Amino acid sequence: MLRQVSFLFGNLTKNRGNFALLHTGCIMAKSKFEYVRNFESDDTCLRNCYIVVRLDGRNFHKFSEQHNFVKPNDDRALGLMSRSARSVMEDLEDIAVAYGQSDEFSFVFKRSTNWFKRRASKLMTHVASQFSSSYVFYWEEYFGGQPLLYPPGFDGRVVLYPSNRNLRDYLSWRQADCHINNLYNTAFWTLVQKGGLSTNQADKRLNGTLSADKNEILFSEFNINYNDEPALHRKGTTLIWEKSFGSDTAAPLRSGVMEELTLFPLHLWYL
Amino acid sequence: MLRQVSFLFGNLTKNRGNFALLHTGCIMAKSKFEYVRNFESDDTCLRNCYIVVRLDGRNFHKFSEQHNFVKPNDDRALGLMSRSARSVMEDLEDIAVAYGQSDEFSFVFKRSTNWFKRRASKLMTHVASQFSSSYVFYWEEYFGGQPLLYPPGFDGRVVLYPSNRNLRDYLSWRQADCHINNLYNTAFWTLVQKGGLSTNQADKRLNGTLSADKNEILFSEFNINYNDEPALHRKGTTLIWEKSFGSDTAAPLRSGVMEELTLFPLHLWYL
Amino acid sequence: MLRQVSFLFGNLTKNRGNFALLHTGCIMAKSKFEYVRNFESDDTCLRNCYIVVRLDGRNFHKFSEQHNFVKPNDDRALGLMSRSARSVMEDLEDIAVAYGQSDEFSFVFKRSTNWFKRRASKLMTHVASQFSSSYVFYWEEYFGGQPLLYPPGFDGRVVLYPSNRNLRDYLSWRQADCHINNLYNTAFWTLVQKGGLSTNQADKRLNGTLSADKNEILFSEFNINYNDEPALHRKGTTLIWEKSFGSDTAAPLRSGVMEELTLFPLHLWYL
Amino acid sequence: MLRQVSFLFGNLTKNRGNFALLHTGCIMAKSKFEYVRNFESDDTCLRNCYIVVRLDGRNFHKFSEQHNFVKPNDDRALGLMSRSARSVMEDLEDIAVAYGQSDEFSFVFKRSTNWFKRRASKLMTHVASQFSSSYVFYWEEYFGGQPLLYPPGFDGRVVLYPSNRNLRDYLSWRQADCHINNLYNTAFWTLVQKGGLSTNQADKRLNGTLSADKNEILFSEFNINYNDEPALHRKGTTLIWEKSFGSDTAAPLRSGVMEELTLFPLHLWYL
Repeated sequence: MLRQVSFLFGNLTKNRGNFALLHTGCIMAKSKFEYVRNFESDDTCLRNCYIVVRLDGRNFHKFSEQHNFVKPNDDRALGLMSRSARSVMEDLEDIAVAYGQSDEFSFVFKRSTNWFKRRASKLMTHVASQFSSSYVFYWEEYFGGQPLLYPPGFDGRVVLYPSNRNLRDYLSWRQADCHINNLYNTAFWTLVQKGGLSTNQADKRLNGTLSADKNEILFSEFNINYNDEPALHRKGTTLIWEKSFGSDTAAPLRSGVMEELTLFPLHLWYL
Repeated sequence: MLRQVSFLFGNLTKNRGNFALLHTGCIMAKSKFEYVRNFESDDTCLRNCYIVVRLDGRNFHKFSEQHNFVKPNDDRALGLMSRSARSVMEDLEDIAVAYGQSDEFSFVFKRSTNWFKRRASKLMTHVASQFSSSYVFYWEEYFGGQPLLYPPGFDGRVVLYPSNRNLRDYLSWRQADCHINNLYNTAFWTLVQKGGLSTNQADKRLNGTLSADKNEILFSEFNINYNDEPALHRKGTTLIWEKSFGSDTAAPLRSGVMEELTLFPLHLWYL
Repeated sequence: MLRQVSFLFGNLTKNRGNFALLHTGCIMAKSKFEYVRNFESDDTCLRNCYIVVRLDGRNFHKFSEQHNFVKPNDDRALGLMSRSARSVMEDLEDIAVAYGQSDEFSFVFKRSTNWFKRRASKLMTHVASQFSSSYVFYWEEYFGGQPLLYPPGFDGRVVLYPSNRNLRDYLSWRQADCHINNLYNTAFWTLVQKGGLSTNQADKRLNGTLSADKNEILFSEFNINYNDEPALHRKGTTLIWEKSFGSDTAAPLRSGVMEELTLFPLHLWYL
Repeated sequence: MLRQVSFLFGNLTKNRGNFALLHTGCIMAKSKFEYVRNFESDDTCLRNCYIVVRLDGRNFHKFSEQHNFVKPNDDRALGLMSRSARSVMEDLEDIAVAYGQSDEFSFVFKRSTNWFKRRASKLMTHVASQFSSSYVFYWEEYFGGQPLLYPPGFDGRVVLYPSNRNLRDYLSWRQADCHINNLYNTAFWTLVQKGGLSTNQADKRLNGTLSADKNEILFSEFNINYNDEPALHRKGTTLIWEKSFGSDTAAPLRSGVMEELTLFPLHLWYL
């Protein structure tokens, strides 16, 4: 059991008679203790590298069940994740792009950012904090009647990428992860929800299958063309600044660009 | 303006005919990208040191004004801080003690903790996240009619302390900070609220004064004995586990112990 | 093949006519490039911890064969290691104790040292450099007629220990390593040199034996009591400052102390 | 005064009767102590960055005076520095280029190097060690009759550079430093050696002068065209692998390339 205490200064400040001594003493005490500051370490991120902060939901498997998330994708939950990510980006303008899927979100700071003097601890805790408070703050907007049972947690990490290629591969890695998981989950829950299998049976059925097999199951047994599933589910969510494309007619340009690219179709020259 | 995009895989997956190739390709792509994992650095905290995570409110001066915090101390706000800290401790049992004042809170992990394998990033982001989501979650319980206008942020850091003495001095440092600030704020707002001074005038009046002077102002002009102010305001809040004292009659023991100690009267042998 | 070049400034400085421009330009160029300094990271060692620098010989198995080291222990080589360690300690007075065995040496800096501002890189490179140059410098003094064939290398690392207990256990760990290796090597080379076994046969004979078995082999077959072997070989070498014991009659005190202790009999209260 | 000790195991191993117990106990002790290994921290260098190790002579001002270095440049000393750097490069083939001037030398590892698993401590201590032992080893070859009075020391550091541009600017920074210092030293020692000024007077004479002024002094007073000074002194020494240029006719290509570049004329695409 936790217990809260307001600690006593002992007999330091028992009576008014010797205030001058005591409270000057307190300031002196403070400076006497201040040496502990030197134990802080410098965690400045290497210059000229992209700084990526990735958040992951803590125990979100359980959290999603307790809050009746729709399977395999709950658009309310995905919407709330994106809304929280927007809240982070609006607060930290040096985040050039954010990418999210499932219960994770990655935030990419510009190579040149000097936010928080590039201190890794400040960057990641601020992102984790703002995202988490936003998640609760906007919960009702997305989940309406479904009450939030307890405050959820996200943990984070910082990773540095020295080159455009490395960063693009990082984002591609996360998007490939999204694709693989979503294809599995779509097949799994279709077998359960439409095919009448138990979760155990669905698990066995998919065990050892390749992507092609899962597509085939969806198509031949349930007449579902996986490619017609919502792009949001298959590919995740990306947040970028309109201005990044340096043009008032950003939208058409952007779409055009993406068509030509594979997997993670992001022009990174503007970061 | 932020823009949300569901990216396209381009012409990778245009028709069903070549699924096998494409989706196996996607898994292969994932493993091709997975090398980016190696860019993560190991930030394991040195063994056998206390791990302290300290959170600080971001722009809380503005936040407190926008939410009509009572000056110099708002018991609702202090209560909410402690409630959020409890939420963190209940989630991370290896936190042996937490100390808070104003808009900051420090969490001390046991020397021997192996939570998150002692990874600094995980520890601090989890604390920052859980604290922040709790702050919003419990807001209404403490602030009732006062609506929360936007999700607040806290940033954090990790500091290691190798010895009991260092840790005690750290906590004493934060408590001395609490004392100095609270004495100033008490004098300042008394001059404004009861003395009719403007904030500028109060600031000038206190400029250059020692602790003794501030006590004298409070006593001789307003008949306030600073030592009679609530301990919560003068000394901050400490959260400990009852069980830490290894006894069913913990409370009496604890009080007894504290009387004998100065400033931060904490027996650390149990951490 | 390596090639040495004195690079040309190109046509920057072709004729005297425009010196002013060019050489002022060079100073300006320097300051333009100086931003690269910010890429250095801060590697200050955590305060109030013991800083241990351990050096290990690089490819010393080969080195010892090429220089005809006596097996299992070459007193010339051990003497040279100690001489080099002394050279390091005489240069860095904040090293309180050094312990060496075989081709390794550990240097323990005082908890409170502020040498090189506790920068790990400076501490370990300086130790590695001074040790290595000393090893070559004093080679002839120890190896006389045996010429040094090429400059040897040592690599190093820094490890921090927060408590006296941790440090004592570190030193005990290295000394236990010395004991185990030396017992094995003594048995191995006795079987070869006195027992007439090939190295392969000796290896097989000792495979799976416990320490007791090795002692028994030495005693019953070769009439060697392992405990009568030189302490230098069985226990390694420790270098300490006489003054550390804070007394003019240090020696008797020290011996007395050691008798009472096991394994690594070091009183660390003076570090 | 330093003192060397072979520590005793105390009464652990007094008589043969209980060997089995004792020596098995030692192995067990070793594993009991082995936990101290976990205090080592991981200092792997960020992938895909150039790793630069720079060495600087320790107290070389004094060292150069004690060993009668010629002023302002001693070709024996510069030759020995380059010889030692070659020794390092021959040992660590993943060093793509090295640049030296005065008593410093920088070693640039390929972005992709995996030597010592990119552990910063291993890389820098090995470079410092090999360089230092080589400096003593080759001393006589360069300094002939001048005996080496004591083993010299070099300290080192590791810096990471994420881009070609950053690395080129680093090398340019060191070369600009070489130029500025050498111009000053040339003017200073010319004033002393040929102009008959005391060192104090020479210092005053040059105080506040620009590069152009120093050139003018050399030219008008001593008929020295600074640009005719040896390139080795003005620009420092660069070591590269012939094979780096991937061609049998490397030399002509390299000279050609350099003419077109300014300051640090290095094509880095091959690193």
